Amino acid sequence: MEYYPASMNTLIQRLARLPGIGRKTAERLAMHILRQPVAEAHQLARSIVDLKQKLRLCERCFALSDDAWCRICSDPSRDNGQVCVVEQPADMASIEKSGAFGGRYHILGGVLSPMDGIGPDDIKIEALMERIRKEKIEEVILATATNVEGESTAAYIAGILAPLQVTVSRIASGVPMGGDLQYVDQVTLKRAMESRHGI
Amino acid sequence: MEYYPASMNTLIQRLARLPGIGRKTAERLAMHILRQPVAEAHQLARSIVDLKQKLRLCERCFALSDDAWCRICSDPSRDNGQVCVVEQPADMASIEKSGAFGGRYHILGGVLSPMDGIGPDDIKIEALMERIRKEKIEEVILATATNVEGESTAAYIAGILAPLQVTVSRIASGVPMGGDLQYVDQVTLKRAMESRHGI
Repeated sequence: MEYYPASMNTLIQRLARLPGIGRKTAERLAMHILRQPVAEAHQLARSIVDLKQKLRLCERCFALSDDAWCRICSDPSRDNGQVCVVEQPADMASIEKSGAFGGRYHILGGVLSPMDGIGPDDIKIEALMERIRKEKIEEVILATATNVEGESTAAYIAGILAPLQVTVSRIASGVPMGGDLQYVDQVTLKRAMESRHGI
Repeated sequence: MEYYPASMNTLIQRLARLPGIGRKTAERLAMHILRQPVAEAHQLARSIVDLKQKLRLCERCFALSDDAWCRICSDPSRDNGQVCVVEQPADMASIEKSGAFGGRYHILGGVLSPMDGIGPDDIKIEALMERIRKEKIEEVILATATNVEGESTAAYIAGILAPLQVTVSRIASGVPMGGDLQYVDQVTLKRAMESRHGI
Protein backbone atom coordinates (compact mmCIF):
# COMPACT_ATOMS: atom_id res chain seq x y z
CA MET A 1 0.00 0.00 0.00
CA GLU A 2 3.03 2.24 0.39
CA TYR A 3 4.17 1.80 -3.19
CA TYR A 4 1.79 4.29 -4.76
CA PRO A 5 0.88 7.90 -3.97
CA ALA A 6 -2.17 8.48 -1.76
CA SER A 7 -4.57 9.37 -4.59
CA MET A 8 -3.67 6.15 -6.42
CA ASN A 9 -3.98 4.05 -3.25
CA THR A 10 -7.39 5.52 -2.47
CA LEU A 11 -8.75 4.61 -5.89
CA ILE A 12 -7.21 1.12 -5.73
CA GLN A 13 -8.83 0.51 -2.34
CA ARG A 14 -12.24 1.70 -3.52
CA LEU A 15 -12.09 -0.36 -6.72
CA ALA A 16 -11.00 -3.43 -4.75
CA ARG A 17 -14.26 -3.23 -2.77
CA LEU A 18 -16.28 -4.03 -5.90
CA PRO A 19 -17.34 -7.67 -6.26
CA GLY A 20 -14.87 -9.89 -8.13
CA ILE A 21 -12.22 -7.16 -8.18
CA GLY A 22 -9.14 -8.13 -6.21
CA ARG A 23 -6.19 -5.92 -5.36
CA LYS A 24 -4.25 -6.85 -8.53
CA THR A 25 -7.18 -6.11 -10.83
CA ALA A 26 -7.88 -2.86 -8.96
CA GLU A 27 -4.26 -1.82 -9.58
CA ARG A 28 -4.58 -2.59 -13.28
CA LEU A 29 -7.86 -0.68 -13.55
CA ALA A 30 -6.42 2.33 -11.70
CA MET A 31 -3.39 2.31 -14.03
CA HIS A 32 -5.73 2.24 -17.00
CA ILE A 33 -7.81 5.13 -15.64
CA LEU A 34 -4.55 7.02 -15.10
CA ARG A 35 -3.62 6.62 -18.76
CA GLN A 36 -7.12 7.47 -20.04
CA PRO A 37 -7.82 10.99 -21.30
CA VAL A 38 -9.17 13.16 -18.45
CA ALA A 39 -12.55 13.50 -20.21
CA GLU A 40 -13.06 9.74 -20.30
CA ALA A 41 -12.22 9.29 -16.61
CA HIS A 42 -14.56 12.13 -15.73
CA GLN A 43 -17.34 10.51 -17.77
CA LEU A 44 -16.90 7.30 -15.79
CA ALA A 45 -17.08 9.21 -12.50
CA ARG A 46 -20.07 11.16 -13.79
CA SER A 47 -22.00 8.06 -14.80
CA ILE A 48 -21.52 6.54 -11.32
CA VAL A 49 -22.99 9.69 -9.75
CA ASP A 50 -25.76 9.86 -12.37
CA LEU A 51 -26.78 6.27 -11.73
CA LYS A 52 -27.26 6.96 -8.03
CA GLN A 53 -29.12 10.20 -8.68
CA LYS A 54 -31.40 9.24 -11.54
CA LEU A 55 -32.17 5.59 -11.08
CA ARG A 56 -35.29 4.58 -9.17
CA LEU A 57 -37.86 1.78 -9.23
CA CYS A 58 -40.76 1.72 -11.68
CA GLU A 59 -43.95 2.57 -9.77
CA ARG A 60 -45.84 -0.25 -11.44
CA CYS A 61 -43.48 -3.21 -11.77
CA PHE A 62 -40.47 -2.16 -9.60
CA ALA A 63 -37.97 -2.60 -12.42
CA LEU A 64 -35.02 -0.18 -12.57
CA SER A 65 -36.12 3.00 -14.27
CA ASP A 66 -35.06 6.58 -14.97
CA ASP A 67 -38.72 7.67 -14.95
CA ALA A 68 -41.90 6.96 -12.98
CA TRP A 69 -42.71 4.05 -15.28
CA CYS A 70 -40.00 1.83 -16.75
CA ARG A 71 -39.39 1.33 -20.46
CA ILE A 72 -41.45 -1.87 -20.59
CA CYS A 73 -44.40 -0.53 -18.58
CA SER A 74 -44.51 2.56 -20.85
CA ASP A 75 -44.37 0.46 -24.03
CA PRO A 76 -47.91 0.19 -25.47
CA SER A 77 -46.91 -2.73 -27.72
CA ARG A 78 -46.35 -5.15 -24.81
CA ASP A 79 -49.06 -7.64 -23.87
CA ASN A 80 -50.96 -6.43 -20.79
CA GLY A 81 -52.42 -9.88 -20.19
CA GLN A 82 -49.18 -11.59 -19.14
CA VAL A 83 -47.06 -10.70 -16.14
CA CYS A 84 -43.75 -12.42 -15.50
CA VAL A 85 -42.75 -12.43 -11.83
CA VAL A 86 -38.99 -12.37 -11.20
CA GLU A 87 -36.76 -11.88 -8.17
CA GLN A 88 -34.38 -9.16 -9.34
CA PRO A 89 -33.95 -6.59 -12.15
CA ALA A 90 -31.07 -8.67 -13.54
CA ASP A 91 -33.47 -11.64 -13.99
CA MET A 92 -35.76 -9.43 -16.02
CA ALA A 93 -32.80 -8.35 -18.17
CA SER A 94 -31.95 -12.03 -18.80
CA ILE A 95 -35.48 -12.86 -19.94
CA GLU A 96 -35.57 -9.76 -22.15
CA LYS A 97 -32.28 -10.80 -23.75
CA SER A 98 -33.81 -14.20 -24.61
CA GLY A 99 -36.62 -12.38 -26.45
CA ALA A 100 -39.03 -15.12 -25.35
CA PHE A 101 -41.54 -12.90 -23.56
CA GLY A 102 -43.67 -10.03 -24.81
CA GLY A 103 -45.72 -9.21 -21.72
CA ARG A 104 -44.99 -7.12 -18.65
CA TYR A 105 -42.96 -7.84 -15.53
CA HIS A 106 -43.27 -7.71 -11.78
CA ILE A 107 -40.02 -7.56 -9.82
CA LEU A 108 -40.34 -8.92 -6.28
CA GLY A 109 -37.08 -7.34 -5.15
CA GLY A 110 -36.11 -10.50 -3.30
CA VAL A 111 -37.30 -13.93 -2.35
CA LEU A 112 -38.96 -15.49 0.71
CA SER A 113 -36.24 -16.60 3.08
CA PRO A 114 -37.25 -17.30 6.69
CA MET A 115 -33.56 -17.92 7.56
CA ASP A 116 -32.76 -14.30 6.64
CA GLY A 117 -35.99 -13.00 8.16
CA ILE A 118 -37.52 -12.13 4.79
CA GLY A 119 -41.27 -12.75 4.83
CA PRO A 120 -44.13 -12.03 2.37
CA ASP A 121 -44.37 -8.39 3.52
CA ASP A 122 -40.72 -7.73 2.66
CA ILE A 123 -41.08 -8.43 -1.07
CA LYS A 124 -43.60 -6.95 -3.52
CA ILE A 125 -46.30 -9.65 -3.22
CA GLU A 126 -49.08 -7.34 -2.01
CA ALA A 127 -48.30 -4.98 -4.93
CA LEU A 128 -48.69 -7.95 -7.30
CA MET A 129 -52.13 -8.78 -5.81
CA GLU A 130 -53.08 -5.13 -6.25
CA ARG A 131 -52.02 -5.22 -9.92
CA ILE A 132 -54.04 -8.39 -10.53
CA ARG A 133 -57.11 -6.71 -9.01
CA LYS A 134 -56.67 -3.50 -11.06
CA GLU A 135 -55.11 -4.53 -14.38
CA LYS A 136 -56.53 -7.00 -16.88
CA ILE A 137 -53.99 -9.72 -16.16
CA GLU A 138 -54.82 -13.16 -17.51
CA GLU A 139 -51.66 -15.10 -16.71
CA VAL A 140 -48.99 -14.78 -14.04
CA ILE A 141 -45.76 -16.58 -14.97
CA LEU A 142 -43.61 -17.32 -11.94
CA ALA A 143 -39.97 -17.05 -13.02
CA THR A 144 -38.22 -17.07 -9.65
CA ALA A 145 -35.00 -19.10 -9.37
CA THR A 146 -35.11 -22.89 -9.26
CA ASN A 147 -33.31 -23.06 -5.91
CA VAL A 148 -35.00 -23.71 -2.54
CA GLU A 149 -35.99 -20.07 -1.88
CA GLY A 150 -37.12 -19.45 -5.46
CA GLU A 151 -39.20 -22.63 -5.55
CA SER A 152 -40.90 -21.93 -2.21
CA THR A 153 -41.57 -18.31 -3.16
CA ALA A 154 -43.20 -19.53 -6.38
CA ALA A 155 -45.26 -22.07 -4.41
CA TYR A 156 -46.34 -19.41 -1.89
CA ILE A 157 -47.42 -16.94 -4.58
CA ALA A 158 -49.24 -19.70 -6.50
CA GLY A 159 -51.09 -20.47 -3.25
CA ILE A 160 -52.34 -16.96 -2.58
CA LEU A 161 -53.22 -16.40 -6.25
CA ALA A 162 -55.27 -19.61 -6.43
CA PRO A 163 -58.61 -17.96 -5.42
CA LEU A 164 -58.19 -15.21 -8.04
CA GLN A 165 -59.40 -15.29 -11.64
CA VAL A 166 -55.93 -15.67 -13.11
CA THR A 167 -53.89 -18.48 -14.66
CA VAL A 168 -50.68 -19.14 -12.72
CA SER A 169 -47.77 -20.89 -14.44
CA ARG A 170 -44.16 -21.71 -13.60
CA ILE A 171 -41.21 -21.61 -16.05
CA ALA A 172 -40.10 -25.11 -17.02
CA SER A 173 -36.96 -26.62 -15.54
CA GLY A 174 -34.92 -29.47 -16.97
CA VAL A 175 -31.70 -30.18 -18.83
CA PRO A 176 -30.22 -26.92 -20.24
CA MET A 177 -30.07 -26.70 -24.04
CA GLY A 178 -26.75 -27.94 -25.41
CA GLY A 179 -26.21 -29.75 -22.11
CA ASP A 180 -24.41 -33.05 -22.00
CA LEU A 181 -26.40 -35.43 -19.76
CA GLN A 182 -23.33 -36.62 -17.89
CA TYR A 183 -22.64 -33.10 -16.61
CA VAL A 184 -26.19 -32.41 -15.46
CA ASP A 185 -26.85 -32.77 -11.72
CA GLN A 186 -29.18 -35.44 -10.30
CA VAL A 187 -31.98 -33.13 -9.20
CA THR A 188 -32.19 -31.48 -12.62
CA LEU A 189 -32.24 -34.87 -14.34
CA LYS A 190 -34.98 -36.10 -12.01
CA ARG A 191 -37.02 -32.98 -12.77
CA ALA A 192 -36.43 -33.35 -16.51
CA MET A 193 -37.62 -36.96 -16.35
CA GLU A 194 -40.76 -36.10 -14.35
CA SER A 195 -41.64 -33.20 -16.66
CA ARG A 196 -41.16 -35.24 -19.85
CA HIS A 197 -43.66 -34.57 -22.62
CA GLY A 198 -44.77 -36.26 -25.83
CA ILE A 199 -43.12 -35.26 -29.09
CA MET B 1 -28.79 -2.77 -24.27
CA GLU B 2 -32.50 -2.05 -24.15
CA TYR B 3 -33.05 -4.00 -20.96
CA TYR B 4 -31.88 -1.34 -18.55
CA PRO B 5 -32.66 2.36 -18.16
CA ALA B 6 -30.31 4.83 -19.87
CA SER B 7 -28.33 5.77 -16.73
CA MET B 8 -27.62 2.09 -16.04
CA ASN B 9 -26.67 1.39 -19.66
CA THR B 10 -24.29 4.35 -19.73
CA LEU B 11 -22.43 3.14 -16.64
CA ILE B 12 -22.31 -0.44 -17.95
CA GLN B 13 -20.83 0.76 -21.26
CA ARG B 14 -18.21 2.90 -19.53
CA LEU B 15 -17.21 0.13 -17.12
CA ALA B 16 -17.00 -2.36 -19.99
CA ARG B 17 -14.31 -0.19 -21.58
CA LEU B 18 -11.93 -0.93 -18.70
CA PRO B 19 -9.38 -3.68 -19.38
CA GLY B 20 -10.49 -7.18 -18.43
CA ILE B 21 -14.06 -6.03 -17.75
CA GLY B 22 -16.55 -7.59 -20.14
CA ARG B 23 -20.22 -6.74 -20.50
CA LYS B 24 -21.34 -9.34 -17.90
CA THR B 25 -18.87 -8.13 -15.28
CA ALA B 26 -19.77 -4.51 -16.04
CA GLU B 27 -23.42 -5.36 -15.38
CA ARG B 28 -22.54 -7.01 -12.08
CA LEU B 29 -20.39 -4.03 -11.02
CA ALA B 30 -23.12 -1.54 -11.98
CA MET B 31 -25.68 -3.58 -9.99
CA HIS B 32 -23.32 -3.52 -7.02
CA ILE B 33 -22.81 0.25 -7.29
CA LEU B 34 -26.59 0.61 -7.47
CA ARG B 35 -26.98 -1.25 -4.18
CA GLN B 36 -24.11 0.60 -2.46
CA PRO B 37 -24.92 3.51 -0.14
CA VAL B 38 -24.86 6.80 -2.08
CA ALA B 39 -21.84 8.02 -0.08
CA GLU B 40 -19.74 5.02 -1.10
CA ALA B 41 -20.57 5.40 -4.81
CA HIS B 42 -19.75 9.09 -4.62
CA GLN B 43 -16.40 8.31 -2.97
CA LEU B 44 -15.56 5.98 -5.86
CA ALA B 45 -16.47 8.68 -8.40
CA ARG B 46 -14.54 11.26 -6.37
CA SER B 47 -11.37 9.15 -6.21
CA ILE B 48 -11.40 8.70 -10.01
CA VAL B 49 -11.56 12.48 -10.45
CA ASP B 50 -8.95 13.03 -7.71
CA LEU B 51 -6.53 10.62 -9.34
CA LYS B 52 -6.66 12.52 -12.61
CA GLN B 53 -6.33 15.89 -10.88
CA LYS B 54 -3.68 15.20 -8.27
CA LEU B 55 -1.43 12.57 -9.73
CA ARG B 56 1.69 13.65 -11.61
CA LEU B 57 5.20 12.35 -12.19
CA CYS B 58 8.02 12.79 -9.65
CA GLU B 59 10.40 15.46 -10.98
CA ARG B 60 13.42 13.35 -10.08
CA CYS B 61 12.57 9.74 -10.88
CA PHE B 62 9.27 10.00 -12.84
CA ALA B 63 7.41 7.70 -10.47
CA LEU B 64 3.72 8.44 -9.84
CA SER B 65 3.45 11.11 -7.18
CA ASP B 66 1.00 13.47 -5.52
CA ASP B 67 3.83 15.98 -4.92
CA ALA B 68 6.87 17.35 -6.76
CA TRP B 69 8.96 14.49 -5.39
CA CYS B 70 7.58 11.00 -4.88
CA ARG B 71 7.49 9.19 -1.56
CA ILE B 72 10.73 7.30 -2.24
CA CYS B 73 12.69 10.32 -3.52
CA SER B 74 11.60 12.28 -0.42
CA ASP B 75 12.59 9.46 1.96
CA PRO B 76 15.99 10.31 3.54
CA SER B 77 16.49 6.71 4.71
CA ARG B 78 16.81 5.31 1.16
CA ASP B 79 20.26 4.63 -0.28
CA ASN B 80 21.29 7.43 -2.69
CA GLY B 81 24.03 5.27 -4.18
CA GLN B 82 21.77 2.76 -5.93
CA VAL B 83 19.30 3.52 -8.68
CA CYS B 84 17.01 0.84 -10.06
CA VAL B 85 15.87 1.54 -13.63
CA VAL B 86 12.42 0.17 -14.50
CA GLU B 87 10.00 0.56 -17.41
CA GLN B 88 6.76 1.49 -15.67
CA PRO B 89 5.48 2.65 -12.25
CA ALA B 90 3.85 -0.78 -11.76
CA ASP B 91 7.31 -2.41 -12.05
CA MET B 92 8.56 -0.17 -9.27
CA ALA B 93 5.57 -1.18 -7.14
CA SER B 94 6.41 -4.87 -7.72
CA ILE B 95 10.03 -4.43 -6.63
CA GLU B 96 8.92 -2.41 -3.59
CA LYS B 97 6.52 -5.20 -2.62
CA SER B 98 9.40 -7.69 -2.72
CA GLY B 99 11.27 -5.54 -0.20
CA ALA B 100 14.54 -6.47 -1.91
CA PHE B 101 15.72 -2.97 -2.74
CA GLY B 102 16.52 0.00 -0.50
CA GLY B 103 17.79 2.52 -3.05
CA ARG B 104 16.04 4.92 -5.37
CA TYR B 105 14.33 4.39 -8.72
CA HIS B 106 14.30 5.79 -12.22
CA ILE B 107 11.18 5.14 -14.29
CA LEU B 108 11.81 5.19 -18.04
CA GLY B 109 8.14 5.46 -18.88
CA GLY B 110 8.51 2.94 -21.66
CA VAL B 111 10.99 0.82 -23.51
CA LEU B 112 12.95 1.15 -26.76
CA SER B 113 10.80 -0.23 -29.55
CA PRO B 114 11.77 0.71 -33.12
CA MET B 115 8.67 -1.12 -34.41
CA ASP B 116 6.46 1.33 -32.50
CA GLY B 117 8.72 4.26 -33.29
CA ILE B 118 9.95 4.63 -29.71
CA GLY B 119 13.58 5.72 -29.64
CA PRO B 120 16.02 6.81 -26.90
CA ASP B 121 14.57 10.35 -26.86
CA ASP B 122 11.06 9.11 -26.12
CA ILE B 123 11.95 7.52 -22.79
CA LYS B 124 13.74 9.08 -19.81
CA ILE B 125 17.30 8.03 -20.69
CA GLU B 126 18.74 11.56 -20.93
CA ALA B 127 17.23 12.36 -17.51
CA LEU B 128 18.99 9.25 -16.14
CA MET B 129 22.34 10.48 -17.55
CA GLU B 130 21.66 13.86 -15.95
CA ARG B 131 21.01 12.22 -12.57
CA ILE B 132 24.22 10.19 -12.80
CA ARG B 133 26.16 13.40 -13.49
CA LYS B 134 24.54 15.31 -10.61
CA GLU B 135 23.79 12.74 -7.88
CA LYS B 136 26.29 10.48 -6.14
CA ILE B 137 25.09 7.31 -7.85
CA GLU B 138 27.41 4.31 -7.55
CA GLU B 139 25.33 1.57 -9.11
CA VAL B 140 22.62 1.52 -11.76
CA ILE B 141 20.54 -1.68 -11.68
CA LEU B 142 18.74 -2.31 -14.96
CA ALA B 143 15.41 -3.95 -14.12
CA THR B 144 13.62 -3.69 -17.46
CA ALA B 145 11.56 -6.69 -18.59
CA THR B 146 13.29 -9.85 -19.85
CA ASN B 147 11.50 -9.74 -23.21
CA VAL B 148 13.07 -8.54 -26.47
CA GLU B 149 12.38 -4.82 -25.92
CA GLY B 150 13.38 -4.90 -22.24
CA GLU B 151 16.62 -6.75 -22.97
CA SER B 152 17.62 -4.41 -25.80
CA THR B 153 16.75 -1.32 -23.75
CA ALA B 154 18.96 -2.64 -20.94
CA ALA B 155 21.77 -3.32 -23.42
CA TYR B 156 21.43 0.16 -24.93
CA ILE B 157 21.53 1.89 -21.54
CA ALA B 158 24.48 -0.26 -20.41
CA GLY B 159 26.25 0.88 -23.58
CA ILE B 160 25.84 4.60 -23.07
CA LEU B 161 26.63 4.32 -19.34
CA ALA B 162 29.87 2.43 -20.00
CA PRO B 163 32.11 5.55 -20.20
CA LEU B 164 30.71 6.91 -16.91
CA GLN B 165 32.08 6.26 -13.42
CA VAL B 166 29.21 4.00 -12.39
CA THR B 167 28.67 0.26 -11.93
CA VAL B 168 25.93 -1.07 -14.21
CA SER B 169 24.16 -4.33 -13.34
CA ARG B 170 21.20 -6.32 -14.66
CA ILE B 171 18.68 -8.23 -12.55
CA ALA B 172 19.22 -12.00 -12.76
CA SER B 173 16.93 -14.14 -14.84
CA GLY B 174 16.38 -17.88 -14.51
CA VAL B 175 13.90 -20.42 -13.19
CA PRO B 176 11.27 -18.72 -10.98
CA MET B 177 11.30 -19.77 -7.31
CA GLY B 178 8.92 -22.65 -6.62
CA GLY B 179 9.00 -23.42 -10.32
CA ASP B 180 8.75 -26.96 -11.59
CA LEU B 181 11.43 -27.43 -14.30
CA GLN B 182 9.04 -29.18 -16.68
CA TYR B 183 6.84 -26.10 -16.86
CA VAL B 184 9.69 -23.66 -17.48
CA ASP B 185 10.20 -22.53 -21.08
CA GLN B 186 13.34 -23.39 -23.06
CA VAL B 187 14.78 -19.87 -23.22
CA THR B 188 14.50 -19.43 -19.45
CA LEU B 189 16.11 -22.82 -18.84
CA LYS B 190 18.95 -21.99 -21.22
CA ARG B 191 19.51 -18.67 -19.41
CA ALA B 192 19.37 -20.38 -16.00
CA MET B 193 21.98 -22.88 -17.15
CA GLU B 194 24.30 -20.23 -18.58
CA SER B 195 24.01 -18.08 -15.43
CA ARG B 196 24.66 -21.00 -13.05
CA HIS B 197 26.80 -20.18 -10.01
CA GLY B 198 28.72 -22.10 -7.35
CA ILE B 199 26.96 -22.91 -4.07
